[in-house]
Amino acid sequence: MAIVGLAGATGDVEVARLSPDGETATVLGPLAEFWRDPRAHLASPARGRQVSVRSAEVVPPVLPDARVICIGLNYLRHLAEGSYSGEALPEHPTLFARWSRSLTVGGAAVPVPANEAGLDWEGEVVAWVGERLVDATPDEALAAVVGYSTFNDLTARRAQKLTSQWILGKNADRSGPLGPMVPADEVGDLRDGLRVRTRVNGEVVQDASTDDMVYHVGDTLALVSGTLTLEPGDLLATGTPSGVGYARTPPWLLQPGDEVEVEVERLGVLRTPIVGNDHRTAGKPTRRAAPA
Amino acid sequence: MAIVGLAGATGDVEVARLSPDGETATVLGPLAEFWRDPRAHLASPARGRQVSVRSAEVVPPVLPDARVICIGLNYLRHLAEGSYSGEALPEHPTLFARWSRSLTVGGAAVPVPANEAGLDWEGEVVAWVGERLVDATPDEALAAVVGYSTFNDLTARRAQKLTSQWILGKNADRSGPLGPMVPADEVGDLRDGLRVRTRVNGEVVQDASTDDMVYHVGDTLALVSGTLTLEPGDLLATGTPSGVGYARTPPWLLQPGDEVEVEVERLGVLRTPIVGNDHRTAGKPTRRAAPA
Repeated sequence: MAIVGLAGATGDVEVARLSPDGETATVLGPLAEFWRDPRAHLASPARGRQVSVRSAEVVPPVLPDARVICIGLNYLRHLAEGSYSGEALPEHPTLFARWSRSLTVGGAAVPVPANEAGLDWEGEVVAWVGERLVDATPDEALAAVVGYSTFNDLTARRAQKLTSQWILGKNADRSGPLGPMVPADEVGDLRDGLRVRTRVNGEVVQDASTDDMVYHVGDTLALVSGTLTLEPGDLLATGTPSGVGYARTPPWLLQPGDEVEVEVERLGVLRTPIVGNDHRTAGKPTRRAAPA
Repeated sequence: MAIVGLAGATGDVEVARLSPDGETATVLGPLAEFWRDPRAHLASPARGRQVSVRSAEVVPPVLPDARVICIGLNYLRHLAEGSYSGEALPEHPTLFARWSRSLTVGGAAVPVPANEAGLDWEGEVVAWVGERLVDATPDEALAAVVGYSTFNDLTARRAQKLTSQWILGKNADRSGPLGPMVPADEVGDLRDGLRVRTRVNGEVVQDASTDDMVYHVGDTLALVSGTLTLEPGDLLATGTPSGVGYARTPPWLLQPGDEVEVEVERLGVLRTPIVGNDHRTAGKPTRRAAPA
């Protein structure tokens, strides 16, 4: 089962279940209502109206005020390849923030800002929080995960490295393509290993397994819940394995005209065409997804 | 003139203008509508319905998907007092992220997470973006600012310093009290100097002027707009001057029972009572402000 968002004409978003062939979607309910009880909506027989996906605007089923919490260094070989190589493994996951407005869906074109030499790929897995978590244990936190998605944490490296803090380079326009949510019970535990592959114009550039993660989903969410209360609909991007572009010799960054794909076992393929800076302004206004 | 948000029973938020005595508020329009054209709403004669502030739930007039962009090191003497002392002045502003859910209003009690020795104060000024900005010049960006507010960037220092990235410690529950928005034309240019003072239980702990800022509002927003498109309603927290608690000998952090006030010339006083970790869960669910 794959869960997507469908935007209405007035900016409201509904959550829907894709048919196996991806041609149609069955509406489960308005976005805010879905996230008030995601498990009940996932378990309910799909009785809502049917929509042709081709004629709909597919958007991430993300609450506008959801927190997109990202792990920066979560695979040992990625830690070793980049700017932090030579440093000891941090005791805690390195967390940075995306705002929900940086998210988009598969197929959407992502622009390279004019002041960047390109965008870097970071294929990874996102976990969706389904319950409120305050001072949770790792087991409680893991049990609260309702689904997973393929994610590409496309990065503007120049902006990321301007200062000690990364967030500018992690929130470029539409730089966070996010695949449909697959319910957790169809995915299993990431510690058992899902294969994560990234391809640029068909060439494999990342190929790893989620069982190589250093910081597990339950541990990280439990850590976060000790400081801020996690709410249903919050997201955890679990970090990328080795093979990113900027750490290569010579560096390799995505250019307008390129296509990058992230494929995660059981979660599907996320395809992203790269375009130029002129596409930052050519599109319609950044969507303000409004809970109905 | 001071602009606030008023929450309705269903979670929708309206923007309203406070009366000079703060007792009543006149509704200007629904939150999303206000931010579609904030200047027009600010200029319009207040003809909406009148609300008693005492009987209303005042909330920040912040779009749920607004980006709260924060400058970490923006006053030379603050740079010199903390963990980054001894380092050269960074060429660019150090930007970190808050999610909108971390924001609250004056008077709201802010809990100290159980795993912190206290919360640290950071009195500062927030600028509100009123127009879309893409690849803007500093002058264009400054001209797009529609208002300013008093802000307290209350910080969970332990969480902030766990790794290289600060955002966990900058997003504790309700840790971002934000005062009413005062229109930019009543405030002037921060480079001309507004006095910023923070008091803990009445004792002055920060006392500075915004003309000591290193990175100005227009420059910083212009920089950001080169990577991500700023939208009306986005916020820039301009950073705190020297005098924070963790850098003192011995360190001084806010404890349950303390009261912290930030006062900014022309923007008013923001008062925040500090409470214990049990208040993280005692309250009602984190509001999901929904554009009407």
